[in-house]
Amino acid sequence: MAKKLWGGRFSKKTDPLVEEFTKSIDVDYKLAKHDIMASLIHTKILAKAGLISCPEAKIIYNGLVDIKKKLDSGKFIFDKNAEDIHTAMQNELEKKIGNIALKLHTARSRNEQVVFDIKRYCIFEGSNIDKLIEDFVRQVEGMANSNKDVILPGYTHMQHAQPIEFKYYILAYAHMLKRDSCRLNDALKRLTYPLGSGALAGTSIVGKLYNEAAQKVYKGMQHPFFKVVENTIDNNSDRDFVIEILNTLAILAMHLSRMAEDFIIWSTQEFGFIEIDDAFCTGSSLMPQKKNPDVLELIRGYTGEIYGNLVSVLTMMKGLPLTYNRDMQLDKKPLFSSVKIIKDELIILTKLIKSVKINKLNIEKQLNDESLYATDLAFYLATKKVPFREAHEIVGRMIKDSLTLNIKIKDMNDRELKTYSHFINKQVIRNIFNPKVSVNSKKSFSKRNLPIKIEVCQE
Amino acid sequence: MAKKLWGGRFSKKTDPLVEEFTKSIDVDYKLAKHDIMASLIHTKILAKAGLISCPEAKIIYNGLVDIKKKLDSGKFIFDKNAEDIHTAMQNELEKKIGNIALKLHTARSRNEQVVFDIKRYCIFEGSNIDKLIEDFVRQVEGMANSNKDVILPGYTHMQHAQPIEFKYYILAYAHMLKRDSCRLNDALKRLTYPLGSGALAGTSIVGKLYNEAAQKVYKGMQHPFFKVVENTIDNNSDRDFVIEILNTLAILAMHLSRMAEDFIIWSTQEFGFIEIDDAFCTGSSLMPQKKNPDVLELIRGYTGEIYGNLVSVLTMMKGLPLTYNRDMQLDKKPLFSSVKIIKDELIILTKLIKSVKINKLNIEKQLNDESLYATDLAFYLATKKVPFREAHEIVGRMIKDSLTLNIKIKDMNDRELKTYSHFINKQVIRNIFNPKVSVNSKKSFSKRNLPIKIEVCQE
Amino acid sequence: MAKKLWGGRFSKKTDPLVEEFTKSIDVDYKLAKHDIMASLIHTKILAKAGLISCPEAKIIYNGLVDIKKKLDSGKFIFDKNAEDIHTAMQNELEKKIGNIALKLHTARSRNEQVVFDIKRYCIFEGSNIDKLIEDFVRQVEGMANSNKDVILPGYTHMQHAQPIEFKYYILAYAHMLKRDSCRLNDALKRLTYPLGSGALAGTSIVGKLYNEAAQKVYKGMQHPFFKVVENTIDNNSDRDFVIEILNTLAILAMHLSRMAEDFIIWSTQEFGFIEIDDAFCTGSSLMPQKKNPDVLELIRGYTGEIYGNLVSVLTMMKGLPLTYNRDMQLDKKPLFSSVKIIKDELIILTKLIKSVKINKLNIEKQLNDESLYATDLAFYLATKKVPFREAHEIVGRMIKDSLTLNIKIKDMNDRELKTYSHFINKQVIRNIFNPKVSVNSKKSFSKRNLPIKIEVCQE
Amino acid sequence: MAKKLWGGRFSKKTDPLVEEFTKSIDVDYKLAKHDIMASLIHTKILAKAGLISCPEAKIIYNGLVDIKKKLDSGKFIFDKNAEDIHTAMQNELEKKIGNIALKLHTARSRNEQVVFDIKRYCIFEGSNIDKLIEDFVRQVEGMANSNKDVILPGYTHMQHAQPIEFKYYILAYAHMLKRDSCRLNDALKRLTYPLGSGALAGTSIVGKLYNEAAQKVYKGMQHPFFKVVENTIDNNSDRDFVIEILNTLAILAMHLSRMAEDFIIWSTQEFGFIEIDDAFCTGSSLMPQKKNPDVLELIRGYTGEIYGNLVSVLTMMKGLPLTYNRDMQLDKKPLFSSVKIIKDELIILTKLIKSVKINKLNIEKQLNDESLYATDLAFYLATKKVPFREAHEIVGRMIKDSLTLNIKIKDMNDRELKTYSHFINKQVIRNIFNPKVSVNSKKSFSKRNLPIKIEVCQE
Repeated sequence: MAKKLWGGRFSKKTDPLVEEFTKSIDVDYKLAKHDIMASLIHTKILAKAGLISCPEAKIIYNGLVDIKKKLDSGKFIFDKNAEDIHTAMQNELEKKIGNIALKLHTARSRNEQVVFDIKRYCIFEGSNIDKLIEDFVRQVEGMANSNKDVILPGYTHMQHAQPIEFKYYILAYAHMLKRDSCRLNDALKRLTYPLGSGALAGTSIVGKLYNEAAQKVYKGMQHPFFKVVENTIDNNSDRDFVIEILNTLAILAMHLSRMAEDFIIWSTQEFGFIEIDDAFCTGSSLMPQKKNPDVLELIRGYTGEIYGNLVSVLTMMKGLPLTYNRDMQLDKKPLFSSVKIIKDELIILTKLIKSVKINKLNIEKQLNDESLYATDLAFYLATKKVPFREAHEIVGRMIKDSLTLNIKIKDMNDRELKTYSHFINKQVIRNIFNPKVSVNSKKSFSKRNLPIKIEVCQE
Repeated sequence: MAKKLWGGRFSKKTDPLVEEFTKSIDVDYKLAKHDIMASLIHTKILAKAGLISCPEAKIIYNGLVDIKKKLDSGKFIFDKNAEDIHTAMQNELEKKIGNIALKLHTARSRNEQVVFDIKRYCIFEGSNIDKLIEDFVRQVEGMANSNKDVILPGYTHMQHAQPIEFKYYILAYAHMLKRDSCRLNDALKRLTYPLGSGALAGTSIVGKLYNEAAQKVYKGMQHPFFKVVENTIDNNSDRDFVIEILNTLAILAMHLSRMAEDFIIWSTQEFGFIEIDDAFCTGSSLMPQKKNPDVLELIRGYTGEIYGNLVSVLTMMKGLPLTYNRDMQLDKKPLFSSVKIIKDELIILTKLIKSVKINKLNIEKQLNDESLYATDLAFYLATKKVPFREAHEIVGRMIKDSLTLNIKIKDMNDRELKTYSHFINKQVIRNIFNPKVSVNSKKSFSKRNLPIKIEVCQE
Repeated sequence: MAKKLWGGRFSKKTDPLVEEFTKSIDVDYKLAKHDIMASLIHTKILAKAGLISCPEAKIIYNGLVDIKKKLDSGKFIFDKNAEDIHTAMQNELEKKIGNIALKLHTARSRNEQVVFDIKRYCIFEGSNIDKLIEDFVRQVEGMANSNKDVILPGYTHMQHAQPIEFKYYILAYAHMLKRDSCRLNDALKRLTYPLGSGALAGTSIVGKLYNEAAQKVYKGMQHPFFKVVENTIDNNSDRDFVIEILNTLAILAMHLSRMAEDFIIWSTQEFGFIEIDDAFCTGSSLMPQKKNPDVLELIRGYTGEIYGNLVSVLTMMKGLPLTYNRDMQLDKKPLFSSVKIIKDELIILTKLIKSVKINKLNIEKQLNDESLYATDLAFYLATKKVPFREAHEIVGRMIKDSLTLNIKIKDMNDRELKTYSHFINKQVIRNIFNPKVSVNSKKSFSKRNLPIKIEVCQE
Repeated sequence: MAKKLWGGRFSKKTDPLVEEFTKSIDVDYKLAKHDIMASLIHTKILAKAGLISCPEAKIIYNGLVDIKKKLDSGKFIFDKNAEDIHTAMQNELEKKIGNIALKLHTARSRNEQVVFDIKRYCIFEGSNIDKLIEDFVRQVEGMANSNKDVILPGYTHMQHAQPIEFKYYILAYAHMLKRDSCRLNDALKRLTYPLGSGALAGTSIVGKLYNEAAQKVYKGMQHPFFKVVENTIDNNSDRDFVIEILNTLAILAMHLSRMAEDFIIWSTQEFGFIEIDDAFCTGSSLMPQKKNPDVLELIRGYTGEIYGNLVSVLTMMKGLPLTYNRDMQLDKKPLFSSVKIIKDELIILTKLIKSVKINKLNIEKQLNDESLYATDLAFYLATKKVPFREAHEIVGRMIKDSLTLNIKIKDMNDRELKTYSHFINKQVIRNIFNPKVSVNSKKSFSKRNLPIKIEVCQE
């Protein structure tokens, strides 16, 4: 294993199994660029505090910038033997600039570095996800716009309920994702960047110098995330933000799983409401005819991993005494996993939506189901001052008779219709049993006529 | 079973097993007062829209107010045979005012009523929990204030790390709970009260009238929660807010589980840092000497139920097609459970904290552990321009030798000390190996000198 | 609060809040009959060991039997102020037989009593569930038998795959439940009844006498569950069996959720494969026509609570030091909840299945989909020595052309068909594109011709 | 992307994003050797059934054996562009033996291949874990043997309860793991190897031949896992075994988390009961003195990931209609993750246990706590026919007085002692307040004198 950031107190070498079991470089190498940023800021503070000299600071700073460039170019090779990313970066710097690198470790601990790194990761990826949500919402709006005139049966309990404009139905998903964006931004706004927390107690002896310098440096960065840590013990033992983001992504994943389910059902042979493009389906090695909506199934299925990631970190944090415990190292794998899945899902679903073809014919066939207009008929009776529960009873009976006698309500004659209520006749039925009329009757609701554009949360 | 709000279409009676299995009155009776409020507002809107006459509205309104009074008095007896609370309230009204009650069902569906009821429940209980958090934070501050001079060993990995002021340590919990309060308020601010959504499609025919009237009524209520529903499909199929609150409570429970763990460990015979009052402990039926911190153990253990409640609703919502599905009825039991547990825990823990006695003697004994000052010694060397990683190495060696040779560092003579570094001698050790000095050295950090008062989130 | 089983050591009364928070009688009163059984056996052992006299034993035994009778009659009123069921039962006995009841507490602790009670509960309810599984499996077989000739499209990815006999499809659920029964019995066989464990260390001083007596008493009971505890520490701190049963029920619930999903989809207007009896559906307060499969939705939704219960106990047990901790009291609510839900679901689903009507016409319509026979055609080519992957390619192309040119394969002429392969002609297509032929071709598999009877696990 | 096992029916290329999102080779490459085994058996069956000729079978068989050799040597390079491991293996074979390889795809589907592969993986790794449990149990027994004479305070509620032999305490963990082994073997015995299931319906046309041949081949393998599939639909849609194993590993992880917690607490400065070897600890980059039990903390923390994995697969399977859905592809990552963690934990903990040093002095100090003998004193009174609850009361009072008056019970004189009970005097106290006596008094329990050897489950 590569050089460690500790060891003087130990009289025995670490067991190789232990090194393998405890190291986190395989996971946390993804934090490299954030770790470098922490070191750059830390260097500035050390210099401003007079804890390192100006020339020393310059050497360290330039060394770090060099590493950053290599990272950005994608050519950096991580030392997979290092204990963690902090050690890997520190060792790299030592290789580059020699012993001066050792001074970088003044007044800091990996316990705070890792908090800085993950928080900055959250802010970066949070903002990426936010942009992908925006794209998704726009695409859903596009779908709504291109199918303005489509009316489809609305469902409750998966049974025909009332006619619904397709655009109104599909926009429900845009509203869900909009809430997800708000929730995400609320989580991100709670993040502050901590430096100077030390292992748990703050940086001692040099503390005053360090912290005064930090405040000046932070000011220069003009970024709301750079705030002075109020309680270093809380700071180093806190992983709330990981859980809050994992939960936000869990709700988001749940939303996408519902859209996936709707689309999967709509693309069955029996529904046939939509067709998903060949480019977004896969086949079977046995059955030559198969065209499967695998993408949608995986989106539904990944909900499992995303829920599991949330449970993972919640469980890990349960009952941990203060402050830092090594258990907390295990917050990263679940976080990275949920972030990756959600990003992939948003990108691919946005593209898939664009390709979906609506089969109007199949949808219209379902609109012939008279039960879809039962509620409208009851509402009509209510406007004639029939108490609603009575109207409900009357129409319920009509539906039952229609099914039992196997006769359509539209085909009943005036005499038959009057037996239910003298407000009902063939003309009334003809007017009401009509998808356009049904849908328009609810358009009055002012918000329903708004343009399809949905504002994504701006805090 | 009592009268139902539907039935005309059915030619067979519901199987009694089905009635038993599907009814929710055993759980949702808790929503009674919120359901009455929904009906009161709905009555106002119906009247303003001219969908019921003014005299009718008055009769309905007064009938509802009567029921509300009985509810408030605690004397209301719920009809446990009713399908759900909405049916129970409707039936009660019919018993009171006869057939006019039927008109209340104009232009509404239980699908939206239940959303209204749960959201109002969340706002009520959310605000209750917020007050309990405030009490808790104040009590923690009180504990901090009464033990201003206590210094205790800080821990990482449950091993002695550095001396910490007790007040600073305990206030970390106040910071956590403060974040919980912010998170809760963020969740609550997202709630809007929906009426007029109907089953999924909005209220038809009478929709325009209803919604215009609703907007006027809402304006009169001058409450941010009363907003026009943007998308009725989204509204009726949304349970995000339940999950978000359950997650907020899960994080809160996790915080309390950590405090419980700290206190349980501190009150072991071996630590003996605190003593919990007899009034907050229980004994054993077998072992006469036992005085057990059961309250703290249950607080730790209830984390399980609270996590389980979150998983329950997340699982239930996974992959549900739009809009309302009966599965969603199962959101209430987990929500009510987590709310009750958290309220109980906050009340009892606030009271328990007040009773805790700090055993200074046992704590001070631990401060003799020289390893607590190792970091300060390394910092001291760093101020002498020894690169920190070298300083770390030196002090590590001192600790190792002290353990191996079984000699305290304080008892080493100047000659021995100089072998480690010429900056170290008996006087230096005497100065640095001192809890007060150690703690004061970090006090410089401006925020550390702030009064103990912590602002609880105000949005 | 009622009298406690401890208290001598305490100089202050328990805070009423603490009594309320820690007591478990509201949940564990369900264990009453098992607790009496524990006391009856314990009495026998004490008498046989000479720790109480024979006349004393008789008085205690008769007192317990009296309580048991009252319990069985359903007339027993639980003292809701008692700390737990063990205390409630003990107090009741004291009321009945006076001070002699105090002797019952010799050599036992609530820590072991509660383990005995829950294990006996598991064995009772486990066996009840097993019987309900048996009923369910028989009902599924009945459904299979009554629809022997129905062929329906089999699905993968919810897309038409290959024709399947309905009986074979539905029996898959019987196989799943059969595995659940085996899993449950495996869990139950691991249970042993512990008495004599004391709080953690076994019963001291009187231990030898007690344990020798216990072995004799157990022998007399001739029940495999009565075994000597091998390690009392393990015994009192073990809740594995609760988790194992909760997981078994979670898998079972998952199976039922899949059947519910299948049935919900099949009873949509668009599929229309089955009709669920009116007695098993409910309606809507707004929409008069609605007939919703609420029972199935709730079965699907309850999966959430059942998964949550599992997570609850897993979380609670995580990281608990040995031996008994009060957290473990919280194992019962989740266990009782999952047991009740599963029993209800099995009873109601068994009854619902009986009422389901198969709509053969709608199913047959779907069998006209030619893609269902694509695999059979490819298999046919394979028997002609066309490598299977080439055959797959050929048939895939036929399907594509059929869709693009909007012509059924059955309507292609011999010339057209030969362009794909000289093994294909109209006669071949006519033979192969036939549900009965397709299904019979796989009947050869010996097991497929077995009678429909499925053996439920017998260990 | 590499060649696929399907495609004829598609008129468009798969979107590269979709290929990336749906492919599983990054995860399922671990199944390679099991996939080859499936193909080897399948080849035998095809040959025996006359579906391929003998010379063809030989070419295929030899090709597969060549691939297997390369896999075993560790030199095989996986084609990361392949869709999954089945495709990768098939393509590799084609590269090796050309078009004949296509015949291997006769009468099989990836849906059954993947079930075969995972089941065989479970059997392999299950048996590996079983061996590691055996090692662990032996090591715990070794620890018990080397510390036969150590007595330590037993705890309930983390408070001193009664003296316990260390060996008896630590063996509790061996008993837990023994149960885990039994549970694991129960899960494994339920596994049967399925071939001939096809995609869902069994293999058609050639079915009879295939299945008769399969039965002969299976017979030759004389392995209980090779059984005829009873229901192919159930077989292809079943992932119970993954969940059952994940739950078994979750319970195991919970056990290890408890041992970790015990060891972490015991190695605090305040307890000081054990010392973990330097080789199994790590240090701090800031604090030179730190020696942290990171391995134990990670073992405790990984419980989170392992619980999360279980939740992941349970969630994924919830409400899936039959038969195969692509969601089910996501069963492998959680399974592989839990298996790897558990194996690592068992290996490292077994080694760590060996290195643990018991600090008898610190333990003995705690045995001076008189409260540990309170129960023994109460038992003593019970043998004098004092009803146990009265004895409990008496001793409780003694403890209270001792604490209040700050006098040890051992230091009370005969007169003082008699005020509690005339059965108590200095000699009695001296006899009873003795760890050895206390422990020996419970030794009578026959099982307690058994040798330390624990039988690991043999089914």
